[in-house]
Amino acid sequence: MVKTISKEHVDNEVVIKTIRKLIRKEAKENVNNLLSKLHPADIARILLNLAPDEQIFSIKALKDIQLKAEAIEYLDDYKVAARLLEQINPEEAARILEKISPDKAADIIDELDEEFEEKVQQHLNPQFKEEIAKLLRYPEDSAGGIMNPDFFAIDKDMTIEEALEEIRKASKEKQIIYVYVVDKYGHLIGVVTLRALITADKNEKIENIANTNIISVRTNMDQEEVAKIVEKYDLLSVPVVDNKNRLVGVITVDDIIDVIREETTEDIYKLIGTSQEEFEETRVLNIIKYRAPWLIMSLIGESISGTVLKHFNGTLKTAISLSFFMPLIMALGGNTGQQSQTIVVRALALGKFDESGIWKIIKIQIKTAISIGGLFAILGFVMALVFQRNLPLAIVVGSSLFLSMFLSTILGAFLPLGLKKLNVDPAVAASPFISAMNDIMGLLIYLSIATFSIKFFGVKL
Amino acid sequence: MVKTISKEHVDNEVVIKTIRKLIRKEAKENVNNLLSKLHPADIARILLNLAPDEQIFSIKALKDIQLKAEAIEYLDDYKVAARLLEQINPEEAARILEKISPDKAADIIDELDEEFEEKVQQHLNPQFKEEIAKLLRYPEDSAGGIMNPDFFAIDKDMTIEEALEEIRKASKEKQIIYVYVVDKYGHLIGVVTLRALITADKNEKIENIANTNIISVRTNMDQEEVAKIVEKYDLLSVPVVDNKNRLVGVITVDDIIDVIREETTEDIYKLIGTSQEEFEETRVLNIIKYRAPWLIMSLIGESISGTVLKHFNGTLKTAISLSFFMPLIMALGGNTGQQSQTIVVRALALGKFDESGIWKIIKIQIKTAISIGGLFAILGFVMALVFQRNLPLAIVVGSSLFLSMFLSTILGAFLPLGLKKLNVDPAVAASPFISAMNDIMGLLIYLSIATFSIKFFGVKL
Repeated sequence: MVKTISKEHVDNEVVIKTIRKLIRKEAKENVNNLLSKLHPADIARILLNLAPDEQIFSIKALKDIQLKAEAIEYLDDYKVAARLLEQINPEEAARILEKISPDKAADIIDELDEEFEEKVQQHLNPQFKEEIAKLLRYPEDSAGGIMNPDFFAIDKDMTIEEALEEIRKASKEKQIIYVYVVDKYGHLIGVVTLRALITADKNEKIENIANTNIISVRTNMDQEEVAKIVEKYDLLSVPVVDNKNRLVGVITVDDIIDVIREETTEDIYKLIGTSQEEFEETRVLNIIKYRAPWLIMSLIGESISGTVLKHFNGTLKTAISLSFFMPLIMALGGNTGQQSQTIVVRALALGKFDESGIWKIIKIQIKTAISIGGLFAILGFVMALVFQRNLPLAIVVGSSLFLSMFLSTILGAFLPLGLKKLNVDPAVAASPFISAMNDIMGLLIYLSIATFSIKFFGVKL
Repeated sequence: MVKTISKEHVDNEVVIKTIRKLIRKEAKENVNNLLSKLHPADIARILLNLAPDEQIFSIKALKDIQLKAEAIEYLDDYKVAARLLEQINPEEAARILEKISPDKAADIIDELDEEFEEKVQQHLNPQFKEEIAKLLRYPEDSAGGIMNPDFFAIDKDMTIEEALEEIRKASKEKQIIYVYVVDKYGHLIGVVTLRALITADKNEKIENIANTNIISVRTNMDQEEVAKIVEKYDLLSVPVVDNKNRLVGVITVDDIIDVIREETTEDIYKLIGTSQEEFEETRVLNIIKYRAPWLIMSLIGESISGTVLKHFNGTLKTAISLSFFMPLIMALGGNTGQQSQTIVVRALALGKFDESGIWKIIKIQIKTAISIGGLFAILGFVMALVFQRNLPLAIVVGSSLFLSMFLSTILGAFLPLGLKKLNVDPAVAASPFISAMNDIMGLLIYLSIATFSIKFFGVKL
């Protein structure tokens, strides 16, 4: 039977409800029967949506160790995976880990409670243990940290026939998308597609049909860079080499998709002043640790805004209508500033644009700022005129809106670029910081223009 | 030679500078020589970073029509591609389009100026023309719109030997990742990997080695759903079937990565109150069209904030120090609200969480709101006490901070979920809207508490 996935089928809510009922009845056998029928990716999704104690019940209920391992691998969340394994006895946990691809197993082991990790390590088979130890030496976010060291490669001096024989003998668990070609020292020489192997003459040497113009990455390359390369060249997998050009692992595109998701979520979270880790975090105290620095920055910034207000207290008292437009000027400046900032940060993150491309984008932002500032200056002017029937006030509001919207765009567009040039993560200009800056700027502009108008032109606002 | 890509090599800035110099000298031949040495993906990146007239010069300078087609395909920006083709004569444009995969060619043709499109259509070869016409019938964002109709499939009744022969005969341009198996009516039956073909007995029938538990999608499925399925099951490609289960196309993972990038950028842009299309837009008037509705919403919302201020004018006049803390209360509420909102919107977008999973996240948000509101209530209280030496004011500030931070978190967390339940895009709760709501709420809370304290307790703020 062909399984066509329609939107309905993806929804696991029904299964989750059934499982919850079964768990309440402690019907271990039934939970096993239900889960065993599912794709491991679906089991993983269901686990992610259950409460911690339900997760533990389910994983313990599942009998097939292979399915258990695959479901844990599909979790794509090493913290949750580690918490689950800790509930199983160390020997079984070791058996499960050995069935997970070494790069992911290493990440899960890294998250295990130290005492439990030690016990698991004792039960791992020596070869796997060594592979894991090697992987743990690479930073988690580097090509070395996400590569699978269990790849398939053949010697350049083989014939096609010999290569095909090697493929037939290879372990079924090794995924073969491309066949990498190495010399006798393990140096990466080129790549052959399975299709080329099928098509070529059996007695031809591999060396002669290999594509040697191959794109590879170094173990120390940041995973975000790797993702950009895979994305740019539309690769299905990319070989990883050490600094002597020896093939040491392979990164496949499904891991790259995970990297892209992770990095984008991280970028979004940084923009609003928290961390991607908050997402995987359930302890409120840790969440506060991520957010508090930005909110404290906001606290300090807005106290400066408060000081500005206090400083212009005289003006505000003589011209009461001024306060009516204060929220407007702060908010519109803040919003346009955030829009420009987000667009520039995103352009930098996509990695498609070099400096000239970014400049093109900033130029458009400035043009937009002038037009949109102009438009809202007119709207603000008309509003002040209609609701307050005061022409000088309307002029003050209009010109302040234009200036604050224009300047906050400049700030929003240039700050990320400037930070990047200084090799500082552009996300430092997170939203709470930018909005505090904009509030200070907006109030200063508005209240200065108003005070100036009152003092020098004697107008009544 | 093995090409190891290090960070330096990805940077095209040097090439761009050289090309600019060559363009100024109108050295067409040199531009061609320089570009011809590059990977088409790099040519595409360079084009994206050049000014429009430089793009036209470069694409015209490039002689090799195959390379030109590949570079245009790698652009991944149909608008830019269409603008470039319009500068070439229609016949050459048709030749280029025929070398681009039909799904992308259709998207580019869709963006062409009507008059030019008509001329190009006249020059397309009939078979390609028909394929394009078929694709253009599917919505651009559906599985049908992004699938490649030029796939490789074999009959279930073939033997392995015959299948291998078919692969040898197939056009080199067809990418073969999986071999799809169909019956004589074209119904999708299963899938075989090339590796399985290599390993199996030559006289075995395809039907017997095919994996029939295959995941496929319908032509009308939204591209975002397709991306979620490919991501969930770690697929390299997914077959697309019509409503009679006939195989009509294949979507490969590189197209899925483009979808993920596009959809994420769209999500981020919606959060700040603009559209992904702004990114591809160079005409300022159109950018204003995307942003203005949200900014006008902000204008209206902040006028309400202004009205709140006006309403509490009496209180503000009697208690001048109150205004000092106003920016603080508005901003901290706004920031925490945006944080919770973004986290819930992101969780909904990732598609990993069902309702129970989202509830788990919202519960954590509420706990966080209480703790973080409490923390900043204390900080605000202490600040007011230290700087204003006024205990009642400190109590008003502290309690207002707690309430506004707590309520804006509730708003930020529940509004996207509520909208989703109503089948409204959660992004409608864009940042300018949420921050206006928070400003109104913050001011109302703060000034009400203050007025209440003055009136009923007779305290002096």
